[in-house]
Amino acid sequence: MKRIGVYTSGGDAPGMNACVRAAVRAAVYYGLEVYGIKRGYNGMINGEIFKMDSSSVSNIIQKGGTILKSARSKEFMTKEGRQRAYDQLQQFGIEGLVAIGGNGTFTGAKLFYEEFGIPTVGAPGTIDNDLYGTDYTIGYDTAVNTALEAIDKIRDTADSHERVFFVEVMGRDSGYIAIPCAIGGGAEIAMIPEAVTTVESIIDTIRAGWGRSKTSSIIIIAEGEIEGGAMKVATKVMEVLPDMDARVTILGHVQRGGPPTVFDRMLASRLGIACVKGLIDGQKNVMAGTINSSLVYTPFEETITKKKEISQDLIKAVEMLSV
Amino acid sequence: MKRIGVYTSGGDAPGMNACVRAAVRAAVYYGLEVYGIKRGYNGMINGEIFKMDSSSVSNIIQKGGTILKSARSKEFMTKEGRQRAYDQLQQFGIEGLVAIGGNGTFTGAKLFYEEFGIPTVGAPGTIDNDLYGTDYTIGYDTAVNTALEAIDKIRDTADSHERVFFVEVMGRDSGYIAIPCAIGGGAEIAMIPEAVTTVESIIDTIRAGWGRSKTSSIIIIAEGEIEGGAMKVATKVMEVLPDMDARVTILGHVQRGGPPTVFDRMLASRLGIACVKGLIDGQKNVMAGTINSSLVYTPFEETITKKKEISQDLIKAVEMLSV
Amino acid sequence: MKRIGVYTSGGDAPGMNACVRAAVRAAVYYGLEVYGIKRGYNGMINGEIFKMDSSSVSNIIQKGGTILKSARSKEFMTKEGRQRAYDQLQQFGIEGLVAIGGNGTFTGAKLFYEEFGIPTVGAPGTIDNDLYGTDYTIGYDTAVNTALEAIDKIRDTADSHERVFFVEVMGRDSGYIAIPCAIGGGAEIAMIPEAVTTVESIIDTIRAGWGRSKTSSIIIIAEGEIEGGAMKVATKVMEVLPDMDARVTILGHVQRGGPPTVFDRMLASRLGIACVKGLIDGQKNVMAGTINSSLVYTPFEETITKKKEISQDLIKAVEMLSV
Amino acid sequence: MKRIGVYTSGGDAPGMNACVRAAVRAAVYYGLEVYGIKRGYNGMINGEIFKMDSSSVSNIIQKGGTILKSARSKEFMTKEGRQRAYDQLQQFGIEGLVAIGGNGTFTGAKLFYEEFGIPTVGAPGTIDNDLYGTDYTIGYDTAVNTALEAIDKIRDTADSHERVFFVEVMGRDSGYIAIPCAIGGGAEIAMIPEAVTTVESIIDTIRAGWGRSKTSSIIIIAEGEIEGGAMKVATKVMEVLPDMDARVTILGHVQRGGPPTVFDRMLASRLGIACVKGLIDGQKNVMAGTINSSLVYTPFEETITKKKEISQDLIKAVEMLSV
Repeated sequence: MKRIGVYTSGGDAPGMNACVRAAVRAAVYYGLEVYGIKRGYNGMINGEIFKMDSSSVSNIIQKGGTILKSARSKEFMTKEGRQRAYDQLQQFGIEGLVAIGGNGTFTGAKLFYEEFGIPTVGAPGTIDNDLYGTDYTIGYDTAVNTALEAIDKIRDTADSHERVFFVEVMGRDSGYIAIPCAIGGGAEIAMIPEAVTTVESIIDTIRAGWGRSKTSSIIIIAEGEIEGGAMKVATKVMEVLPDMDARVTILGHVQRGGPPTVFDRMLASRLGIACVKGLIDGQKNVMAGTINSSLVYTPFEETITKKKEISQDLIKAVEMLSV
Repeated sequence: MKRIGVYTSGGDAPGMNACVRAAVRAAVYYGLEVYGIKRGYNGMINGEIFKMDSSSVSNIIQKGGTILKSARSKEFMTKEGRQRAYDQLQQFGIEGLVAIGGNGTFTGAKLFYEEFGIPTVGAPGTIDNDLYGTDYTIGYDTAVNTALEAIDKIRDTADSHERVFFVEVMGRDSGYIAIPCAIGGGAEIAMIPEAVTTVESIIDTIRAGWGRSKTSSIIIIAEGEIEGGAMKVATKVMEVLPDMDARVTILGHVQRGGPPTVFDRMLASRLGIACVKGLIDGQKNVMAGTINSSLVYTPFEETITKKKEISQDLIKAVEMLSV
Repeated sequence: MKRIGVYTSGGDAPGMNACVRAAVRAAVYYGLEVYGIKRGYNGMINGEIFKMDSSSVSNIIQKGGTILKSARSKEFMTKEGRQRAYDQLQQFGIEGLVAIGGNGTFTGAKLFYEEFGIPTVGAPGTIDNDLYGTDYTIGYDTAVNTALEAIDKIRDTADSHERVFFVEVMGRDSGYIAIPCAIGGGAEIAMIPEAVTTVESIIDTIRAGWGRSKTSSIIIIAEGEIEGGAMKVATKVMEVLPDMDARVTILGHVQRGGPPTVFDRMLASRLGIACVKGLIDGQKNVMAGTINSSLVYTPFEETITKKKEISQDLIKAVEMLSV
Repeated sequence: MKRIGVYTSGGDAPGMNACVRAAVRAAVYYGLEVYGIKRGYNGMINGEIFKMDSSSVSNIIQKGGTILKSARSKEFMTKEGRQRAYDQLQQFGIEGLVAIGGNGTFTGAKLFYEEFGIPTVGAPGTIDNDLYGTDYTIGYDTAVNTALEAIDKIRDTADSHERVFFVEVMGRDSGYIAIPCAIGGGAEIAMIPEAVTTVESIIDTIRAGWGRSKTSSIIIIAEGEIEGGAMKVATKVMEVLPDMDARVTILGHVQRGGPPTVFDRMLASRLGIACVKGLIDGQKNVMAGTINSSLVYTPFEETITKKKEISQDLIKAVEMLSV
């Protein structure tokens, strides 16, 4: 392998730039040529492909977002789109790919390999942390820290007023963000997609707090929980407790940005190197991840189909620590 | 005057603690005794009053919220409530008050003076900055910086995706928070209570941006603007532009917390000293503020009835800088 | 005037990019052409000059440093250097300049006008805040907030251990940074260039604190104070108090970087606009600044020769608040 | 076991409060009585012991430092001191201890058990991360993030000026803080106690950078490296390269403070629970830690005598990524 391409795809995550940087510099270190591909599969199809070297990735390790931009591509979902992408790669002489993204990204890469034989090694870049094959995804640590900083600020006010705060954090399919926010933010309850927390139980918790003169409560709500988000939960609770002084915060995309934490920069750097090393060693159709701090390559087939379960100990800890 | 009381009232604001600290230490410096009153007028009525000295306010200057707690008091709105508060103050020998809060706080203090002759000097503690008689209120600078940090993070994502972000910031009656967020955050539009921004004009701006291939936009919305907040505005815009990829963030009480900025600590310290100095000099029924960096005492009568206008230059700057 | 140039010079300061952005967009708004000049006078001499438009300054308002780079130029100190710079500007058809920097920058601009008639309007970009003609310089608010965040962290430790912390902040010629750090950080003493604080008085203060069982102290030291900085002061104090557990922190260039605060973005935006408006209105050889919130143009002659005095009230407040 | 005590000892670390909170609430959850001991072994000797319950640890999870204070105790190093400590514990009926600290703390606890039979389970609370028996210590993640934020700010300036920055971070005996700072901060070199980096090699690196027109460099220096710290290294380099524009930053105790990161709050919460659970299960003379995400109890004997080695891969990554 002499020439590889790097792209980011799907929702952006803090640390993607650190991963791009590591991949580019590892390529240089190992004597490969390296090209950047802009806007994910869209740019691959449209030939938004450019030569990178060590200095192309100077001063980006601390930046949120992705200098390669990101997009979702409908065209790559078609055979014609992938043919066009393949033709572009051929033209640039690109023999292997580093794909930074989530399962949508890897599904495309797998299909692409099956049809055209271009090997891809992926790095898990998503704040959601719900990818099988790695303990942590790039961007997750930063996103949770961002959410927690916001919750810390809310606590300053909570500490002075008799109020209930409903804070909606990201997590369409999992409570990976909500649970540490609840533990680290000293919240009373976390509502997550993986478990059913009824509005009744929230009302009970609030009332129980009032009973032991706990005058403020923070409820963390993953956007994907069954009731439909913080605004709906708050409305339902207020129907039963009309005197309750409630406030809703929806953190939204705030959680996606900002400079990556040390953890995410280290993870991204390590996995960026591992992607390039993997391609050199003949890996394909796999995602580089870390399990128990060890580097592991997991087939896309598995990352796409298997589910990573959130620890029951953590869910229990929310309850134990809010006594 | 030998003995004074200090309290915080209304919504909490970062810097209230710095102001309490300055008032207490200035009292000590000038040889007065000083008492803290908890939970605003509620604590005054219920005798939640305690002796403070220099060490009572150690290590609080950097803390958000208020160590004296805050509450709104229905009872103080009644003559009986105020009588009880007066009796409590008599019992403790308190002859003057430092009140940190907003217009609700000052309205109570004014009434209290008219009925019972207890002089109060107020300090403007509210993140909203819409108090007549001071260029800046305590907490405002911190709140705007907090909002702006969130907007900076949203821009990281905005920069990579073709999206429109609707960000709701505080401001029931004014655009004091929204306008600097828009200028400092590089937003396209600010919707504020003082001006009518139609949903149509937002749609036009978004379309115009698309026309010159500006692929992302940030719209800042003060909670009090006429359409009813970010969620409603976003919904209306999406009815007309169904293909638009829109995201809503409601910062909410995140803006109220956190350690105060230097600006707020300095302002709070200065005004805390000015309240105590004012009481010693015979001031009453006035709010200490700064206008053009000079210390000014403005009668509560005026702070309550007059309106501070937001600068038209600033509103124009949003437009000029988003060309 | 049809075409203007913009450059940054001297030490960089947070908000310089916001000022460049505002100048560029104001130029576009008023129908002028605008060129960026890299690396200050060096780039002017070497023709590092390029056309800018509205999109050249997208997504930079939040960035520390300066996208135009900065440098000190020995060559511009010579007549030959200035002649070369003038020739370059002629070649590009540049008729007026916006200079963002400090007194070194303005001294060059003044000379340049006297010799070649190119009008310059300056914006005060320096973290030191010691420029005559403006209440605040661009970058100052950010620098002080950065220093204060560091001091807040030190206090966490100070609060648990019996220690004396010596923290050196920037300020070769003034205590503008040290004084608010001391007030806002709850420090015991500020050593500044404008006043003589003897090592003996520091020893007295530390001992007095021990006397009233204050077990930790923070001493803020401006780098330019007479004893020669934190390391030397700490060494001298330890000679007298060998049992004292002392720690030294030198914040250094940490204070120069980071995203600008709201205050600095607003000030920079306002002054960037004012520079361009000033050039259009025929201003030259002046610095745009704000005094009591009003926009003021002050001749370079005065900004260079006059001294802005630090408020004695502030120096006194350090003492009053550390009782 | 019915009644336990909790204390923090040695240098404070962010997350100690989160650990105290978890230990107290776990004790409540499991039906134990729990007492706080102030100022480590000093307070144990002097009977600074007080009853805690769930509300004693409200609103502290986000706080740096330790509410239980910390101190080093000479007296506990003597048999008499330990006897007095034992008598105090007897008086309060305390049968087991949770000790949050480092090897000094654990050495004392081990001796104490051998002489008096009081079982202790320890939690690793130190920013240095150099404790055998756990992959991470409480406070380490926060300290590294704090250092990195400072380095990010320095890079803003580095990016505009031709300068070499020497940044001293903590680490008397190890490069655990320096290495991720170098990788995450994009530094050229890390000087650490575990490896010899000569001043000559630094000079070579700086010159090599100049050769490929890299105009600025950041050198990270662990305080314990062999040359004696940043100030000495900078001085030596400047003797050889007198024209080099160098700047020194000594972060010092800034790295010890601040609110803990999510990682540290989670780790601290988990280990605080594990300490209490361990005592209930009959553990003694062991430190609770996590290895490969699993909970592990390691005998104090081993944590004190064995050394945790820093990964050679990480040291190599600094070089690979700074190409």
